[in-house]
Amino acid sequence: MPGNSFGQAFRFTTWGESHGPAIGCVIDGVPPRIALAEADIQHWLDRRRPGQSRFTTQRKEPDTVRIVSGVFEGETTGTPIALTIDNVDQRSKDYGDIKDKFRPGHADYTYWAKYGVRDYRGGGRSSARETAMRVAAGAVARKVLEHVLPAPVTIRGALVQMGPHRIARKRWDWDAVERNPFWCPDPQAAQQWETFLDGVRKAGSSTGAVIEVVAAGVPAGLGEPVYDKLDADLAKAMMSINAVKAVEIGAGLEAAKLSGEQNADEMRMAGERVRFLSNRAGGILGGLSTGQDVVVRFAVKPTSSILSARKTVDRFGRETEISTKGRHDPCVGIRAVPVGEAMMAIVLADHLLRHRAQCG
Amino acid sequence: MPGNSFGQAFRFTTWGESHGPAIGCVIDGVPPRIALAEADIQHWLDRRRPGQSRFTTQRKEPDTVRIVSGVFEGETTGTPIALTIDNVDQRSKDYGDIKDKFRPGHADYTYWAKYGVRDYRGGGRSSARETAMRVAAGAVARKVLEHVLPAPVTIRGALVQMGPHRIARKRWDWDAVERNPFWCPDPQAAQQWETFLDGVRKAGSSTGAVIEVVAAGVPAGLGEPVYDKLDADLAKAMMSINAVKAVEIGAGLEAAKLSGEQNADEMRMAGERVRFLSNRAGGILGGLSTGQDVVVRFAVKPTSSILSARKTVDRFGRETEISTKGRHDPCVGIRAVPVGEAMMAIVLADHLLRHRAQCG
Amino acid sequence: MPGNSFGQAFRFTTWGESHGPAIGCVIDGVPPRIALAEADIQHWLDRRRPGQSRFTTQRKEPDTVRIVSGVFEGETTGTPIALTIDNVDQRSKDYGDIKDKFRPGHADYTYWAKYGVRDYRGGGRSSARETAMRVAAGAVARKVLEHVLPAPVTIRGALVQMGPHRIARKRWDWDAVERNPFWCPDPQAAQQWETFLDGVRKAGSSTGAVIEVVAAGVPAGLGEPVYDKLDADLAKAMMSINAVKAVEIGAGLEAAKLSGEQNADEMRMAGERVRFLSNRAGGILGGLSTGQDVVVRFAVKPTSSILSARKTVDRFGRETEISTKGRHDPCVGIRAVPVGEAMMAIVLADHLLRHRAQCG
Amino acid sequence: MPGNSFGQAFRFTTWGESHGPAIGCVIDGVPPRIALAEADIQHWLDRRRPGQSRFTTQRKEPDTVRIVSGVFEGETTGTPIALTIDNVDQRSKDYGDIKDKFRPGHADYTYWAKYGVRDYRGGGRSSARETAMRVAAGAVARKVLEHVLPAPVTIRGALVQMGPHRIARKRWDWDAVERNPFWCPDPQAAQQWETFLDGVRKAGSSTGAVIEVVAAGVPAGLGEPVYDKLDADLAKAMMSINAVKAVEIGAGLEAAKLSGEQNADEMRMAGERVRFLSNRAGGILGGLSTGQDVVVRFAVKPTSSILSARKTVDRFGRETEISTKGRHDPCVGIRAVPVGEAMMAIVLADHLLRHRAQCG
Repeated sequence: MPGNSFGQAFRFTTWGESHGPAIGCVIDGVPPRIALAEADIQHWLDRRRPGQSRFTTQRKEPDTVRIVSGVFEGETTGTPIALTIDNVDQRSKDYGDIKDKFRPGHADYTYWAKYGVRDYRGGGRSSARETAMRVAAGAVARKVLEHVLPAPVTIRGALVQMGPHRIARKRWDWDAVERNPFWCPDPQAAQQWETFLDGVRKAGSSTGAVIEVVAAGVPAGLGEPVYDKLDADLAKAMMSINAVKAVEIGAGLEAAKLSGEQNADEMRMAGERVRFLSNRAGGILGGLSTGQDVVVRFAVKPTSSILSARKTVDRFGRETEISTKGRHDPCVGIRAVPVGEAMMAIVLADHLLRHRAQCG
Repeated sequence: MPGNSFGQAFRFTTWGESHGPAIGCVIDGVPPRIALAEADIQHWLDRRRPGQSRFTTQRKEPDTVRIVSGVFEGETTGTPIALTIDNVDQRSKDYGDIKDKFRPGHADYTYWAKYGVRDYRGGGRSSARETAMRVAAGAVARKVLEHVLPAPVTIRGALVQMGPHRIARKRWDWDAVERNPFWCPDPQAAQQWETFLDGVRKAGSSTGAVIEVVAAGVPAGLGEPVYDKLDADLAKAMMSINAVKAVEIGAGLEAAKLSGEQNADEMRMAGERVRFLSNRAGGILGGLSTGQDVVVRFAVKPTSSILSARKTVDRFGRETEISTKGRHDPCVGIRAVPVGEAMMAIVLADHLLRHRAQCG
Repeated sequence: MPGNSFGQAFRFTTWGESHGPAIGCVIDGVPPRIALAEADIQHWLDRRRPGQSRFTTQRKEPDTVRIVSGVFEGETTGTPIALTIDNVDQRSKDYGDIKDKFRPGHADYTYWAKYGVRDYRGGGRSSARETAMRVAAGAVARKVLEHVLPAPVTIRGALVQMGPHRIARKRWDWDAVERNPFWCPDPQAAQQWETFLDGVRKAGSSTGAVIEVVAAGVPAGLGEPVYDKLDADLAKAMMSINAVKAVEIGAGLEAAKLSGEQNADEMRMAGERVRFLSNRAGGILGGLSTGQDVVVRFAVKPTSSILSARKTVDRFGRETEISTKGRHDPCVGIRAVPVGEAMMAIVLADHLLRHRAQCG
Repeated sequence: MPGNSFGQAFRFTTWGESHGPAIGCVIDGVPPRIALAEADIQHWLDRRRPGQSRFTTQRKEPDTVRIVSGVFEGETTGTPIALTIDNVDQRSKDYGDIKDKFRPGHADYTYWAKYGVRDYRGGGRSSARETAMRVAAGAVARKVLEHVLPAPVTIRGALVQMGPHRIARKRWDWDAVERNPFWCPDPQAAQQWETFLDGVRKAGSSTGAVIEVVAAGVPAGLGEPVYDKLDADLAKAMMSINAVKAVEIGAGLEAAKLSGEQNADEMRMAGERVRFLSNRAGGILGGLSTGQDVVVRFAVKPTSSILSARKTVDRFGRETEISTKGRHDPCVGIRAVPVGEAMMAIVLADHLLRHRAQCG
């Protein structure tokens, strides 16, 4: 009932605060006899790691993962996989300001309202640092998909909008994603964003973003009607990422504007397999995967940590102001890309195992 | 692990198919000693009932609910509340066409892909008929909120967009919602929609919609970080409703375009209480309620049942066409309004009880 | 979190009170395409039905089960299976005495202490009537085992002790079980018990019993270490049956007296398969099935409803006395035999599906 | 769905193998603002620690616990509490014999049958070493009980039988429990056991035991009918402990022999409170606590590691023999006493929070 676990058959639980000694997770339900090494996880963590460009927080965390249980002689044993990452860059600093004041847009006030106490150092448990463990669990989930399915599932994410600036979909190039610091699939947009984000950064401001995650190769029939629909669980997964304010599947909000004729993807055969002539559904009908690409988008709000002073109150009920000093992400959406990919992998792995339970 | 239950402390499980003898649900975890009568539930079911205007399906279902356990001498006893509604209008008809063919945009193909069998009569389990039970459970959830909280929570929904036509927010009038067949808070838009939807209906077509649900009076601190955030559970709840393709909290997708200065709601005091100067957060920060209005929007795709023939395949792998005859909703989003309200009530009741477990 | 569901992959939820209009259950997670008819369930319900001999309660309940969802054209569809049984024999009677007084040994006082309200008619929710739904769900669980496993699992229960009188294990004859009203595998003991129980019954008294349930043909490897061990879930399943006070696996309590040499079952090969030279473990090691017979025993206390007056208190805090009039079971353990079998089937089906999720 | 977690509102998940780098757990759902230090946990771990007398395994483990998250400035924050203990005494040794052979009475064969792989070093995950984390979680559960309840709950365990030797209940003295290496409440029996166990130990054999755990001060009404009854969850909790083969509540197996008159505990008033004239029920009726002492007993089988050679097979299907060299517990039941106490505390804390969710 408490909220720090996700998934049912592939189930992980995370722990740790931004400025505690370490963060970690326990992944339960992983099939046995999957080859798994720390490097398999580190690869994905490195993609999310802060401080890799001037556009992400300058916190220096090597984010070195350790497997402390569940793997024996290079293989998963079916017992819980425990992972830990030590927190290295916990700069000693004076927390005086955020100790008592609630930063607008952050979880400071709500944690205090809920618990009557909060670890104010770097946001404590509400810090985006927690998402490192999602990426680690996602790396294991990818291994599960690979192990269980006969054909590969490819999960890729991209930033498709930064602030008001969208990519041109006709220029979409997955290879481009790895060649700019924004995971942008449109090289032209990437250039534009660089200028835009430098401006934002220098102004001590921040901006929002939209991320799209696409999973190709997902077999038809994953998902559990009617409450644990695949899209319902994806919506939960993505909305649970820090700062996310909207989740779309396929046509998403645009679906509201369409007519039934435009929206319902027609079907033909491609040999033995069903082929859809379009994918407005985003690969999901009735909460179950169709076999097409599963397409999810989510919107990330601008980082609430900004240099300008903002009106707030403190825990003593006094009105005051606060501004954020020091490092932060001008567009926290950038680092959300690997996190969104990870959550996609986790939801798919979970539903794959759940499907196997009932349907063999 | 199977998917027909929702909630943890307030937990309900639904059963039944569109054309089976009945539909029902079991609600477990309801606090004892709450006054509850069938009329309390019927009131909300009547709002959702089909056939109330020419704009919703002409299926004639009285949707008369029966309480068959969990209430004794007019009060809840703390044991499971079982509710049933008999299916009355199961017109005998020839299912020949949809028996073998997969209707595009429906769950026909995916259920078949998952289970290798499907109840094709009216969509079986994937029918929107299931949502009657969400409304019934939502009625009980409202009672729980009322019983446990010292001050009332008001949950109201409205259609804010039909097809491409949005309301004008400055004309928002909650009273207007009850005075038109669309739950539209903007009387002018309601008139425009009437003409629009008549056109859609006569063309045998359909259109999408956007629904907004607002909960006022929610205390601060509800939600469970980090995976069962209040917004994550709301996203799941709304996305699990038939035909929903997007969910937004507060500023939603628009948050991506904002700067940090615009987005972070500033705070002041109002006597002893914290007051926010804006509500871009939609009443949720760090996954926990702020005490402001909780604001959720979701987009409903156009009904996939349309008169025009659409390309499809059948279960024997043959290419064919299909069109829908008979009754359907030209804008299924209309009947989704009470369903969205119900899911909001359920998520809040669940999190209220969960909060009470941990925090007293 | 509420307590009216059991199982995870094969999950059922029961509802209904002893004297309400009906009782029922919802079973979620059943694999699709299993042939299932009401007669498959009725067969097992008939074995548990009251009033079949002078040794069980004279309540006349036909216990006719109806499948109201989840089965289409004779096959399970993978959607929730809802079952209902109408309560027929709700004799109108004056509940005056038990309305206010707490019957010793019953749940009257504890329900009242927990909920502040209780349905006093026939024990309401705490009545053994609820176990009819366990038997119904158990019938479906047996179908699941049959459908998923290549070889049959045979689940049989027997009464091995009534009051102080035990069977002689050397006379164990499974066929005898069906030939006496006690499910006794020892014909000689059955005769003795008949005299004994007639005495108990005529004295208006009651007696306890011990039931043994044996599952043969269970494959090795079922169970989930370390908290959802197969024996742990069996212990929970059996202890959750009304009036059960002890659960043993294999050697059970006797294991405490043994030496390590006596206790550890030695292993040999039987062709390709592992063979154990004894089965003190009751078919479970480290929480996982060994492939041997799974052997569970549980003790049922004597029915608390007796004719002699017993000291008690009422809900107004007054000291008083109470005695039970009317029908009751002199040895409620008899009817617990089919219930124990059902719970065994349910636990095995659940763990079989769970195993399939993780291990394929 | 995987099995390494226990509890619902107070929920903990353990990880780690006997000879891995560390073991640990994550406890979620702990109320905020409870004073908690490592010493609070260490106190209980020290009671379970191996190597404290010649009657327990000579493995030298300081079992030093570290709190790595969830506590800030000496108080719980409501976020997950992560605990770790480094494994220190992982003697380098040749595992050759147990690497391939299945030790009778151990989980070697069943883990291999389930997963097709096993960490054979010291039993891996199936080692009793895992129970250290139960004791740690139990220490936190005790804090929760203390924090939430107005009056203290006292949880104490004792060994009441070793091999065939039972204590005399009339000599029961709780103070004696701390004065002998067996947690024996009967000083005379303790002396007898010392001689007995020395014999067992010198013979390289082992013996079973029965443990009784008593919780005094539990309020009436805890437990969730009908499947998560307090006794059902206690049965699961105790049966999940390594080597346990039976669980009894109150009169337990003896209840089978009683008449209804003997068994049903009569009730009187003691001022405003209900008083029971006996406690055959072990403090639980209808699955709910009565307010009397909650009394649970469980039987532990003799340690399967013995010096005598035993027939077994290896993973290649060859018949062979095995005997255990090196350290082991001649009566593993001794160290199960603190573990049983811990599981009692955990079940009570979980049900206390669950009760609070529904009933306030």
